[in-house]
Amino acid sequence: MGSLDANCIASPRGFSPLDIDDFRQQAHQTVEFICEYYKGIESHPVVPQVEPGYLRRLLPETPSAQPMPFAKVLSEVQATVLPGMTHWTNPNFFAYFPATLSSAALCGDLLASALNPVAFNWLSSPAVTELESLTLDWLAQLIRLPKGFLFSAGGGGVLQATTSEAVLCTLVAARKMVLERAGHDGADKLVVYASDQTHSTFAKACKIAGIAPANIRIIPTAREDLFSLRPDSLRAAMEADAAAGLLPAYVCATVAGRFGAWVHVDAAYAGSACVCPEFRHHLDGVDRVDSISMSPHKWLLTGLDCCCLWVRDRARLTTSLSTDPEYLKNRATESGLVVDYKDWQIGTGRRFRALKLFMVMRCYGTANLQSHIRSDVRMARGFEEMVAADTRFEVVVPRRFALVCFRMRPRRAGADGEAEADAANRRLLEEVNNSGGIYATHTVIGGIYVIRFAVGTTLTEERHVKAAWELFRAKADAAWEAAR
Amino acid sequence: MGSLDANCIASPRGFSPLDIDDFRQQAHQTVEFICEYYKGIESHPVVPQVEPGYLRRLLPETPSAQPMPFAKVLSEVQATVLPGMTHWTNPNFFAYFPATLSSAALCGDLLASALNPVAFNWLSSPAVTELESLTLDWLAQLIRLPKGFLFSAGGGGVLQATTSEAVLCTLVAARKMVLERAGHDGADKLVVYASDQTHSTFAKACKIAGIAPANIRIIPTAREDLFSLRPDSLRAAMEADAAAGLLPAYVCATVAGRFGAWVHVDAAYAGSACVCPEFRHHLDGVDRVDSISMSPHKWLLTGLDCCCLWVRDRARLTTSLSTDPEYLKNRATESGLVVDYKDWQIGTGRRFRALKLFMVMRCYGTANLQSHIRSDVRMARGFEEMVAADTRFEVVVPRRFALVCFRMRPRRAGADGEAEADAANRRLLEEVNNSGGIYATHTVIGGIYVIRFAVGTTLTEERHVKAAWELFRAKADAAWEAAR
Repeated sequence: MGSLDANCIASPRGFSPLDIDDFRQQAHQTVEFICEYYKGIESHPVVPQVEPGYLRRLLPETPSAQPMPFAKVLSEVQATVLPGMTHWTNPNFFAYFPATLSSAALCGDLLASALNPVAFNWLSSPAVTELESLTLDWLAQLIRLPKGFLFSAGGGGVLQATTSEAVLCTLVAARKMVLERAGHDGADKLVVYASDQTHSTFAKACKIAGIAPANIRIIPTAREDLFSLRPDSLRAAMEADAAAGLLPAYVCATVAGRFGAWVHVDAAYAGSACVCPEFRHHLDGVDRVDSISMSPHKWLLTGLDCCCLWVRDRARLTTSLSTDPEYLKNRATESGLVVDYKDWQIGTGRRFRALKLFMVMRCYGTANLQSHIRSDVRMARGFEEMVAADTRFEVVVPRRFALVCFRMRPRRAGADGEAEADAANRRLLEEVNNSGGIYATHTVIGGIYVIRFAVGTTLTEERHVKAAWELFRAKADAAWEAAR
Repeated sequence: MGSLDANCIASPRGFSPLDIDDFRQQAHQTVEFICEYYKGIESHPVVPQVEPGYLRRLLPETPSAQPMPFAKVLSEVQATVLPGMTHWTNPNFFAYFPATLSSAALCGDLLASALNPVAFNWLSSPAVTELESLTLDWLAQLIRLPKGFLFSAGGGGVLQATTSEAVLCTLVAARKMVLERAGHDGADKLVVYASDQTHSTFAKACKIAGIAPANIRIIPTAREDLFSLRPDSLRAAMEADAAAGLLPAYVCATVAGRFGAWVHVDAAYAGSACVCPEFRHHLDGVDRVDSISMSPHKWLLTGLDCCCLWVRDRARLTTSLSTDPEYLKNRATESGLVVDYKDWQIGTGRRFRALKLFMVMRCYGTANLQSHIRSDVRMARGFEEMVAADTRFEVVVPRRFALVCFRMRPRRAGADGEAEADAANRRLLEEVNNSGGIYATHTVIGGIYVIRFAVGTTLTEERHVKAAWELFRAKADAAWEAAR
């Protein structure tokens, strides 16, 4: 019987979807399911061999009218969902950036789900807000952000789901700041800046915020500068805009601001490394910026989704994002003594994301977080050395933390040699990925096709990195020939 | 030892934050912790008796350098976090809107966290995308959306975290649609419309998108229309704007569109009720709208965060939100056969939210979902009848699903009587909430202070509703006197 025919007949016993005994049994079953999954994780191909639409051939087109036993649903997930997963927790996953995870985060997140508070303001669950503020203060100290980003100094941190939201929220704050100075009719004069190496997130956030496409300046970078943004290029662009009567409003970069623009640093990946003092210099200059974001879900073991945003002047953020509907008015807010996180983000409702970050920091301590980062960097350095030791290959840009961008070298100089190399490297990556053994991805930097090898899933060990390199080596010559 | 002194010493054994045995033990411990929490849920005051800043007095100001045993961290959460929670799962919680939850959702979410895919496009985890598309098609059928919202007809659904994001994404799509028609220099002419009963989310989304504040039309509603948006008021506003050379672009409402504006229906709460045929008429007219959103995290047992957005023309959404960076290029995308959900939302990364929705629909079936909605509505009807039977009280607007808005009646006519009643009802709500026994909230509708009583946490039974009403009754006269 399809569920769409009519009223469905409810099951005879009362429906108690949070019955404690049911939950206990089902949750323990799920935990064992996960343990089995992790045990066998390396036996799954990292990228699934499925065709678009595969799942619709395995599951019904209409929802089920009657309940299905929990164990049967788990088996169905095993049989239909798992074969179509790209396994981000597989230790042979070297694609994109890693999404790291930990037992503490999983347990913290489960607990957060079970508490299920909708903590849009302080009153709607004080502990959620206060734990978030405190944990963000902790992490700010851990990566040695200037004191101005702490709550005690008028700054503060908030957890967002994604970097995009952090960028969008600060962009909205920047717009308000600049327009207040310039007069409110200057919206079409706002100009924003980022390097051509900035994540696509930035351009999208600008589009969402309604920045005129003609006013988004993407500053070119070059290989000789290691593809970093040159302060003089940025300054020239800003000067030209200001001279033309436009309003430089927002820079997404790692350099200090000028022209009264809001400067945001996107340290989604790199920020986590800064828990180690030896990497902290990558944030030099952050004392002169307005906001910074980093994503512990990338490299600090928290699982999705967990992006930290800190601002130096929280009032600038909250005055641009606040709402004050009658049904949320309350004395705590009116007292001015509390943080209402709905005014720090796009949405109203929000998950209790701080709990998993808190549990990661508490269960592991700074010592282990540092050793986790260092271990990944050490493995990536080992990979980089192996690449450099093989004359067929080259590291295209210096390793950045645990990310190695490399390729097979061109076999002759000039544009044709480059084109050949691009084709051969593309082929090599395909061959390696199609083997099912590992998964890496590519990008194009300064016109050069490079293979990105990002070390750092939680389960990756040195043996996985070595085996991956052996795979690239073994397939290199054949790929070159096949691409000709 | 603070963690900020220097490099911290790592623990002697290697650091394995996803060790299977550790995870098994810690996860089972967490499950038992949750079971204990639910067992004692009614013993916690619904709203905590804590002062702003309470948590900083219980936890250190700096992060811990050394690891802390898992069990000790759980105890710490018990001792410091739980006393500051507003307990949204407490069956005596009648505030805001309920955030419902279920064992299937908790297990589905745990499993999603353990798989931890960052499914920004199809390739990055095909099963995540396909399960989401299928589950949204299922739910669309369950609430009988027109076929145009299904994937097979060029529409489709996506899971967002919040209604705000759904509104913002469709607003951006609407802007592109209207500006393409009008020529790209009309951004400052775009006008958007909603009723004064629309969630504050709408105004905020407009602000984020950069809609000029002067171009946001909030159409007043009146008590004699039961505070719903009058089509003629909307039409008059749109006609006046169009005559003035402005561009009606977006309506957030429940009525059909005109002037080529995009019409979005926010059915965050009401949408779930439409799994029951007898409530489906609330979506009449949805065949003429461009998009609709509803939040299963409110009333369909999925836990946070889970907001469904359906659009009739998915290309309109994706062309306005797409990005195409080199490092995400892949053949599946180029084939045009797949859905890349990063182009349906603000962020790039995303959690595997569909799994919990799938497990809820699969484990419980339509039959139980309907009985769950009906049971809440029945309880709310019972509450409404008790209010109506007490001559001191009145139901101010007709019950909407499981939400009752009521107050103590004014004791004399005129403005003074109304002011007295407002004060007395305010006092009554305070007294009831301060008892710790229940939690309800207020709003102001048409200038009248009303108490909102929303039935529907997963654990609420008839006895809780009856006891809550007894509390209001018992405190009514004293509150009236005290407020004089």
